[in-house]
Amino acid sequence: MQAGANRYAVARSLYSEESFAEEHEKVYRRRKTALDHVKQYFTCDARRAKNAVLSLLPIIGWIKIYRVKEWLLSDIVSGVSTGLVAVLQGLAYCLLASLPPWYGLFSAFFPVVIYFFLGTSRHISAGPFPVLCLMIGSSVTRLVPDESPPANITGFEGLTKDEQRVLVASSVTFLVGIMQLAMGILQVGFVVTYLSDTLVSGFTTAAAIHILVSQLKFALGLQVPGISGPLSIIYTLEVIFNKIQSTNVCDVVISLAIMVAVFVVKELNDRFKAKLPVPIPIEVIVTVIACGVSYAFDFRSKYGVDVVGHIPKGYEPPLAPNLHIFQDTAMEAFPMAIVGFAVAFSVAKVYSVKHDYTIDGNQELIAFGVSNIFGASFKSFAASTALSRSAVQESTGGKTQVAGLLSAVIVMIVTSAVGFLLDPLPKSVLGAVVIVNLKGMLTQFREVPYLWRRDKADCAVWLGTCIAAVLLGLDLGLAAGLGVEVLSVVLRAQFPRCSVLANIPGTDIYKDRKDYVDIYEPEGVKIFRIPSPIFFANIEFFRSKLVEAVGFNPLRILRKRNKALRLIRKLVKKGYLQWTANGFLNTSSGPVKESAEAESDAEGRDLPTDLKELPGRVDWNAELPADIIVPRVDLHSLVLDFAAVSFLDVSALKGLKAALKEFVRVEVDVYIVACDPSVLEKLHQCSFFDDEVRPSMFFLTLHDAALHILSKHPERRQNKSGYGKILTTVTTHHPAGGLRSRDRNAPDPETRL
Amino acid sequence: MQAGANRYAVARSLYSEESFAEEHEKVYRRRKTALDHVKQYFTCDARRAKNAVLSLLPIIGWIKIYRVKEWLLSDIVSGVSTGLVAVLQGLAYCLLASLPPWYGLFSAFFPVVIYFFLGTSRHISAGPFPVLCLMIGSSVTRLVPDESPPANITGFEGLTKDEQRVLVASSVTFLVGIMQLAMGILQVGFVVTYLSDTLVSGFTTAAAIHILVSQLKFALGLQVPGISGPLSIIYTLEVIFNKIQSTNVCDVVISLAIMVAVFVVKELNDRFKAKLPVPIPIEVIVTVIACGVSYAFDFRSKYGVDVVGHIPKGYEPPLAPNLHIFQDTAMEAFPMAIVGFAVAFSVAKVYSVKHDYTIDGNQELIAFGVSNIFGASFKSFAASTALSRSAVQESTGGKTQVAGLLSAVIVMIVTSAVGFLLDPLPKSVLGAVVIVNLKGMLTQFREVPYLWRRDKADCAVWLGTCIAAVLLGLDLGLAAGLGVEVLSVVLRAQFPRCSVLANIPGTDIYKDRKDYVDIYEPEGVKIFRIPSPIFFANIEFFRSKLVEAVGFNPLRILRKRNKALRLIRKLVKKGYLQWTANGFLNTSSGPVKESAEAESDAEGRDLPTDLKELPGRVDWNAELPADIIVPRVDLHSLVLDFAAVSFLDVSALKGLKAALKEFVRVEVDVYIVACDPSVLEKLHQCSFFDDEVRPSMFFLTLHDAALHILSKHPERRQNKSGYGKILTTVTTHHPAGGLRSRDRNAPDPETRL
Repeated sequence: MQAGANRYAVARSLYSEESFAEEHEKVYRRRKTALDHVKQYFTCDARRAKNAVLSLLPIIGWIKIYRVKEWLLSDIVSGVSTGLVAVLQGLAYCLLASLPPWYGLFSAFFPVVIYFFLGTSRHISAGPFPVLCLMIGSSVTRLVPDESPPANITGFEGLTKDEQRVLVASSVTFLVGIMQLAMGILQVGFVVTYLSDTLVSGFTTAAAIHILVSQLKFALGLQVPGISGPLSIIYTLEVIFNKIQSTNVCDVVISLAIMVAVFVVKELNDRFKAKLPVPIPIEVIVTVIACGVSYAFDFRSKYGVDVVGHIPKGYEPPLAPNLHIFQDTAMEAFPMAIVGFAVAFSVAKVYSVKHDYTIDGNQELIAFGVSNIFGASFKSFAASTALSRSAVQESTGGKTQVAGLLSAVIVMIVTSAVGFLLDPLPKSVLGAVVIVNLKGMLTQFREVPYLWRRDKADCAVWLGTCIAAVLLGLDLGLAAGLGVEVLSVVLRAQFPRCSVLANIPGTDIYKDRKDYVDIYEPEGVKIFRIPSPIFFANIEFFRSKLVEAVGFNPLRILRKRNKALRLIRKLVKKGYLQWTANGFLNTSSGPVKESAEAESDAEGRDLPTDLKELPGRVDWNAELPADIIVPRVDLHSLVLDFAAVSFLDVSALKGLKAALKEFVRVEVDVYIVACDPSVLEKLHQCSFFDDEVRPSMFFLTLHDAALHILSKHPERRQNKSGYGKILTTVTTHHPAGGLRSRDRNAPDPETRL
Repeated sequence: MQAGANRYAVARSLYSEESFAEEHEKVYRRRKTALDHVKQYFTCDARRAKNAVLSLLPIIGWIKIYRVKEWLLSDIVSGVSTGLVAVLQGLAYCLLASLPPWYGLFSAFFPVVIYFFLGTSRHISAGPFPVLCLMIGSSVTRLVPDESPPANITGFEGLTKDEQRVLVASSVTFLVGIMQLAMGILQVGFVVTYLSDTLVSGFTTAAAIHILVSQLKFALGLQVPGISGPLSIIYTLEVIFNKIQSTNVCDVVISLAIMVAVFVVKELNDRFKAKLPVPIPIEVIVTVIACGVSYAFDFRSKYGVDVVGHIPKGYEPPLAPNLHIFQDTAMEAFPMAIVGFAVAFSVAKVYSVKHDYTIDGNQELIAFGVSNIFGASFKSFAASTALSRSAVQESTGGKTQVAGLLSAVIVMIVTSAVGFLLDPLPKSVLGAVVIVNLKGMLTQFREVPYLWRRDKADCAVWLGTCIAAVLLGLDLGLAAGLGVEVLSVVLRAQFPRCSVLANIPGTDIYKDRKDYVDIYEPEGVKIFRIPSPIFFANIEFFRSKLVEAVGFNPLRILRKRNKALRLIRKLVKKGYLQWTANGFLNTSSGPVKESAEAESDAEGRDLPTDLKELPGRVDWNAELPADIIVPRVDLHSLVLDFAAVSFLDVSALKGLKAALKEFVRVEVDVYIVACDPSVLEKLHQCSFFDDEVRPSMFFLTLHDAALHILSKHPERRQNKSGYGKILTTVTTHHPAGGLRSRDRNAPDPETRL
């Protein structure tokens, strides 16, 4: 590495945007308009058609490359273990939806089958997802409450409470499916980008709390009506505490025992992940044991334990959704559609990155849409994916959706053959299993201090979402969270830290004046950095900051000058004042005062000072006659650093133009530097320029503008700063002086010659 | 201006952020924390206390400087004319609130008196504002419909329909007042900054449409029930068209005649603004005439024209608001509070700028809050300001709120003495006057094409707000509009135009590679510009764009390399491969294949390639043994231009760090340049750096980084580009060569020597 290599030397002509454009030929590029994109989107050829079809049936893609002898075995292993978990979770999560348990088995079957054909992820296990079940549950309990009579919906007549609930659940699911399918077809899968990690984390934590509360009644063996709507969680807790003395001890014992067991074994599974071939399926084991014990000692009749009860064999005939329920639940279905998809997609993304294959958001939407529509017609409820179950499928070596299909087969076997074995299973067991599985979600509370230390705004989003979702319910909570999140972006851009820049002597570098000891600000020049995009919410903020920075309000100055000017003109006309070579001569000062008083300040006060009828230019910073006082302005140039202005909106354009005009009219030269090409383009489109605001005020870099200013105001040359030096180096074209002067460290080969 | 003055020459040492920090001493500045601001806000001394009191009673401020002999006369003139308009508008706007007309007179009196003492604007005329009246009207008709019985609210018992309506209106007003007062005390006046001009314009246009429709029934002399809620406008129009044949011809004639008259004269007023001392009070004139005619020919009984009817003399006893109505209308009162304040404030701002005095948003909130609370207790309804009335007050020469007070006196005279004269006034006259005054608001439609040409997003906001407000009603519409507006900001920042930069030969300037003909991109270097802030919604977008720009996915490369590496290690162990000075020697290639197959791709695939157990470094771009294929990477340096990154959120931090790591691990040097100090600060706070992502990757400018790269990869020197030249100039320290080489135009004094 040579001596020179750690030095920076440039000599080029000085560039304003205009001179640069003249010297450097620009390639004309036609930007694609929205129309072009649309056209392009709808043009169709054989290849695109083929791809479209293939992307609609991803199975074709991966089944071709299926390596039977390598993958099949692990798929089988994974499928079986996933299936067992799916059965259990199906029953358990059904309680969240406050439906009879066995419907959960349907939800663990139909969607999986469809997803096998349409899904692009090879590792997620479709089926019930607790948060979604809970959201369905709240609609269900809203329309078909436990204690009061159901909402009057045509179609409810002659149905038992459970049938009504199933009808509601499947109708909502159907609606969710339609929405997801529609979104998939409209290719709006990108909406999930608005659910930031922070938001999702806060939201799922809130969901975990809701789930916990909803499962308490099973763990304690209490009869608690499902309450829905804002603050429902408070009311539910109230009811539980009121009934606390009627707790069923047997249930409590069971659930505690199971929680401890499951918790411990899961910890061990994590600890010895490496050593274990497959994680111990503890949920399944405890369930089997619990079934046995409960059957042997007849918990149900002896201790009044609430058990799963009779599970009918086989499947039920399809069911048409109820349109009236559509109307009633549309507002709730939409967040479900979003949440269900978002969760599934984010899990799928994790695995796709890990195993290095691509997933397609819109295809996922279609897959889940169809799954839900199809499933709903067979009385299953909204499907997404449970993180825990997917983890099982992947960790037990699942390679493709074949594993998913096999898990569905297991579920089918249970439904159609051995379901009766689960009859004596206490619901408290299911509750306990669900609660223990919340650990992961609840530990997300750790994020709060983490976020607080890193980014207050993000922390606010997390807390806002979580608290809103806990109190208002999950759907409203999600909306509120989104609002806070979007607002946080606006706020970040709205109140940036403005700064006045100055030159680091002997360099072309400009830093915050206040930040450095040895820094030089040429007199009469202000360099103001706008450190964020400009839009309706912050344009006024910037204008005030700018006025603060330059230390005077140009508009006020302008008015004072115009007023003074009109007065002077009048006095000159009347002959009280006389124009002489060196300014004004005050002939008689008597009536000046009055006429000054009488001076009306109405018309033309904001127009640029026009000097017609006056023999010469008034030097505002000189002494004025007839003791007219106009504040001095010792600023001759204002430079705005636009480097960080990534966009402007119309309000910003107006405000900016007004601000610039004000300065131009008090004879301050305004320069804008480092303006993004797209912004500059936009300014031209929006006829931003006129005879006061000219394109010539745009310069390439701060230093270009600064040098231009210095050459325009040469009196600045005299002073002893790096600036003068630079200019010297420029004029004499002998950089050595410049170099020597600022070579503190680093021996300079040149100076030695 | 000397020859040298239009040249740019710099010679300084090369700066990374670190080396710069070493060389330039930084001033330690303690940033104010939120806590400090709070403290500062609550510290109190005599001066602040005094100011606080004064700011609470602005009248003290301006009454002291009141110039009686100059201002009083014009205030009186303005006060009288404003008063007459106020009477008329009071009656007219009352119809919008679907209340008996004379209550409008109260609203034109009480708020004005309070505003006289508390308001900071000297030119706006407080009182009824059509949009606000309409919003109140919708709540009124919701709770007390024309045809169906009123909502069952305790307090309605034994009241006539009109009394119930007045109770509703005054209660809502009271609530609005409380909200405004609260906002004022909490100093949240800044919320209006979120109501951009575009939004307000769209909103008021929608309001104008609502008003037009609501007045049609009076202009046509029809009986139409007031309908409220979403789509109410559609239903109203439906009703009107169904009843169209029962139109009262007399009413139609009257209103048409008046509309024409008023319209024409208003045009004349505008045309001859300069010549007229005060604009012709045409509304007042036509009203007087209409009254006379209607009385003379007894329109009421002859033609069944609906007239104002008996106006009771004097004021009514105060009335306590009804708390049940508070509950029912809270959701509607909030938007009223915002809209009422926002409009008044924006009008006030216009005049304050024009006449060069300051107004205080929070004080305005307090003023209107108190006005409404006080007014409501005397059965007036929500006050803001009507643009037309304020225009009258200002254009007729009003100088201070004294004019406002006088207008209130006029209104009082009408109320307490001469009100009966207005009894025969047909409502169609009022309707016609209101409709004609909508001209201004409706012409705002012109903005749509204007905005469309300038900024599509803003146009969308306008249309979104207007359509939503028309269809959903004003309150929901406002909310929707705000949503669209805030979202537009996010979208602007979300999909910026990324670009790959390259060097303009012979300069330190970097531009979009595709934009210029003569541009040089050093091989092995990519310069990627991130043209907007980075946050949760666009981090993934940037990562994909970056991968696109560099042309390979670093993660995939890394995996392929690690896989290959494990394989090589294995083969070396087994002795199939041999390490020689110049790479690998493939001893026998037989079993290589199988072992390649058997290679599992599970663990450690994303970790940096570790080379232990290997005698030397593998050159990935060289030929690899055992026909292992790993894609070549001919990129050695990646530069990210952060000039426009004004903020980062936590998601962005995570994503950015991950992206950088991926590149670092495939042995691509990453540099970040022109990073905003506050962003850099944040990165340090958030422990962004580790042994792979190092602070040393930050450089001051693109050119610094580029030169650093070139000195690190000297082989690039050979080529014949401006770059080489720069480097030459640096090493030899003789800029002339550099100069001569690129001096196309502009004779260079130096070269001639």
